[in-house]
Amino acid sequence: MEMDLNAQEKKAGFFQRLKDFPRKLKDGVTKRVKNVKKFGKDDPRRIIHSMKVGVALTLVSLLYYVRPLYISFGVTGMWAILTVVVVFEFTVGGTLSKGLNRGFATLIAGALGVGAVHLARFFGHQGEPIVLAILVFSLGAAATFSRFFPRIKQRYDYGALIFILTFSLVAISGYRTDEVLIMAYQRLSTILIGGTICILVSIFICPVWAGEDLHKMIANNISKLAKYLEGFEVEYFQPEKISKETNSCVREYKSILTSKSTEDTLANLARWEPGHGRFRLRHPWKKYLKIAGLVRQCAFHFEILNGYVLSNDKAPQEFDSKIQEPITTMSREVGEALKAIAKSIKTMSKDSAQTEKDLLKIIPGVTMASILIEVVNCVEKISEAVEEFSGLAHFKETLDPKLSAEIGQHQLLHRGSVKPVLDGDNEKEDNSSSSHVLITVHDEEQPPTATAKNVLGAEKTRVDVV
Amino acid sequence: MEMDLNAQEKKAGFFQRLKDFPRKLKDGVTKRVKNVKKFGKDDPRRIIHSMKVGVALTLVSLLYYVRPLYISFGVTGMWAILTVVVVFEFTVGGTLSKGLNRGFATLIAGALGVGAVHLARFFGHQGEPIVLAILVFSLGAAATFSRFFPRIKQRYDYGALIFILTFSLVAISGYRTDEVLIMAYQRLSTILIGGTICILVSIFICPVWAGEDLHKMIANNISKLAKYLEGFEVEYFQPEKISKETNSCVREYKSILTSKSTEDTLANLARWEPGHGRFRLRHPWKKYLKIAGLVRQCAFHFEILNGYVLSNDKAPQEFDSKIQEPITTMSREVGEALKAIAKSIKTMSKDSAQTEKDLLKIIPGVTMASILIEVVNCVEKISEAVEEFSGLAHFKETLDPKLSAEIGQHQLLHRGSVKPVLDGDNEKEDNSSSSHVLITVHDEEQPPTATAKNVLGAEKTRVDVV
Repeated sequence: MEMDLNAQEKKAGFFQRLKDFPRKLKDGVTKRVKNVKKFGKDDPRRIIHSMKVGVALTLVSLLYYVRPLYISFGVTGMWAILTVVVVFEFTVGGTLSKGLNRGFATLIAGALGVGAVHLARFFGHQGEPIVLAILVFSLGAAATFSRFFPRIKQRYDYGALIFILTFSLVAISGYRTDEVLIMAYQRLSTILIGGTICILVSIFICPVWAGEDLHKMIANNISKLAKYLEGFEVEYFQPEKISKETNSCVREYKSILTSKSTEDTLANLARWEPGHGRFRLRHPWKKYLKIAGLVRQCAFHFEILNGYVLSNDKAPQEFDSKIQEPITTMSREVGEALKAIAKSIKTMSKDSAQTEKDLLKIIPGVTMASILIEVVNCVEKISEAVEEFSGLAHFKETLDPKLSAEIGQHQLLHRGSVKPVLDGDNEKEDNSSSSHVLITVHDEEQPPTATAKNVLGAEKTRVDVV
Repeated sequence: MEMDLNAQEKKAGFFQRLKDFPRKLKDGVTKRVKNVKKFGKDDPRRIIHSMKVGVALTLVSLLYYVRPLYISFGVTGMWAILTVVVVFEFTVGGTLSKGLNRGFATLIAGALGVGAVHLARFFGHQGEPIVLAILVFSLGAAATFSRFFPRIKQRYDYGALIFILTFSLVAISGYRTDEVLIMAYQRLSTILIGGTICILVSIFICPVWAGEDLHKMIANNISKLAKYLEGFEVEYFQPEKISKETNSCVREYKSILTSKSTEDTLANLARWEPGHGRFRLRHPWKKYLKIAGLVRQCAFHFEILNGYVLSNDKAPQEFDSKIQEPITTMSREVGEALKAIAKSIKTMSKDSAQTEKDLLKIIPGVTMASILIEVVNCVEKISEAVEEFSGLAHFKETLDPKLSAEIGQHQLLHRGSVKPVLDGDNEKEDNSSSSHVLITVHDEEQPPTATAKNVLGAEKTRVDVV
């Protein structure tokens, strides 16, 4: 009886699942489609790039579809298709770098290959394959080894690969054909056709410039630092007020910690690009990496600070309430300075405002203070580097009045340091007793002395953290 | 007269340069050759890899040199050469990943391509190229778009590329040939031959395993952390004693800051590799990335600490001499613990020793202390992660006696925290005056109290940093 019930239940369950299946399938498909749509919407350039690849493929396939073209090139048209597929990259710099590498490597390796075939023929029917094999082995191995050198790897890795490929193809298949010159010529010309199609489509249809991406990325990274500092006050002093949205916004700086390889790649590709928009041909792309390094340094400090904020080892409330005001002011001011720097990069306009305030005067606290001081130093270094860079990158000198007023409010920072003020431990007879270090926490009303004092002979050791 | 002298001098200078030229050329060439030799010696696997590529190329060229093979495959042998050149990677994982991606993508795209050609023929002579163009455009664009999805990009990027390539080649050239099935078959079989040669040479001649590289890299990174802590004492307290060699040794940790992309790549490739040496097929490669993340966190702290050590904002000597002993002990002990962890990973043996000492009791100092505490916490997290990992990775439980004794000396650490001891500022009537924070620096003779005290009502605010 029970088994019957179980069997019935199972049967009912099965039919239920069968009934639900179309709905579940529909839900699943809808969800997938939504995800894909969202992914495309996040960066519509992805969709445009996919279309561009389609256009380039259609163009290159004309080599087969149009009779006169097919008569000239025949099946070697496939090298043009192959070139389009492997050379077309997301950015103009990527496409140019691959296209030029492929073109020149094919030219050089093709010439060498033809030479190798002719050389090998001197060694007779028996010697020919041996000489060819030795040449292919040694040039292939040498070119492979060259790809390990950082300089070649960075800019000419693809060229070295194509060199090996073309030389091997021409030299080896040259053994079986007498038309090695024609073969090399056809390969070169079809590759040039494919490469040219890629470069033209890449540049003239909604181009994606690696240089512009790099420029925006650095400015955005500086904005992310500013966002962290903006959210810092709430996060540390009023953690209960944090919304989920604010939280993820504040955490954005984390992406900077590991963005080095992306920045390096973009800077490398940007150097292949012609002048475009606001960027000239010899734009100082390498300088971006210097700024990016300093921004990352700053993000490292935030990472440490963040660990401290999240930990349970917080100072008691009485201490917190004392430091809240100055720390809030400090992080706001530095945040504003960062925003101004990010804006200056985004608009490519020099920030002509000079320092007024010495922010370091208002920082108290023990651990956080010194880390925050490092942050201040770091931000100042970033601003110096951007300043130097703005000259090289020909930033506009004039600002529009609205922007000028906004940036003018937020001043850049002085460099500062913590100078502990210590007294010597004169109580030699009482060595085993603990000595005391005094840290003065100044209220804003009473401006602290900026210079470090060293009052010898006093009973207590004092550390003046300003 | 003067002009004559000038001309004579110029002439003499020119002859001197001409005379020096052969010597300079020789020096230059010798230097280059030495550099290349050194580069090869630094990692002899680079030379071996180059040779292996040469071997694979020679093997695949037999398709042309050996008459019966040439009769079977003809010029399609070039796909085998092409496959060898583009698929052969430095690591076994890289070669397997590319080879399998290429093989399966060619199979699927080839089948679809043949299907597309047959479908297009239904539309008559006029409709055929249009249908083919639409199919190539849409499948090419869709596959290109799929390459943006992180999951596909990470593991199947090359497969998607080859899919676009093969489908386009078969579909487009199918328009001009009636032997589209034969073409697709030849392309597939030669690619399989090329891929198989690559995989066999890669695995059976001096294999380079991505997994082993990752394993060694993580262990080495932990050793680098240990080296920094070892050198820390000398660097901070006796900077005059630092040799150039020690300095670069101490700075080794810097490479960890930006090693994320290398680790990610290696872990990704390691998952393609079969079991090898001490690693089984389903070795927990992802766990390495977790440890690596913690190691990098620790390196971030070092970077901050390093900025502090190099800055001029050091504490006065009296203070330094007081903290030297405990800081030295602390950094030595943590350094030893790290060394033990690195050794445990290197030898894949579990460290069964338990905590004894509470290192946090001996850390004084203001800024450095709290950062060092973070370092201690970080190291403990690393040791926990390694512990978890060692279970998953089937580390040996037993140790050889020598190693056991060595590791036994260096204990793992307790988790700890800095708890500032504060008094409330009860002197409400004197709000404008500066309040004082007291930091107690304990001498080793007098063990400090481990618990935080909160003595309310006292006149001075005290921070007890232990």
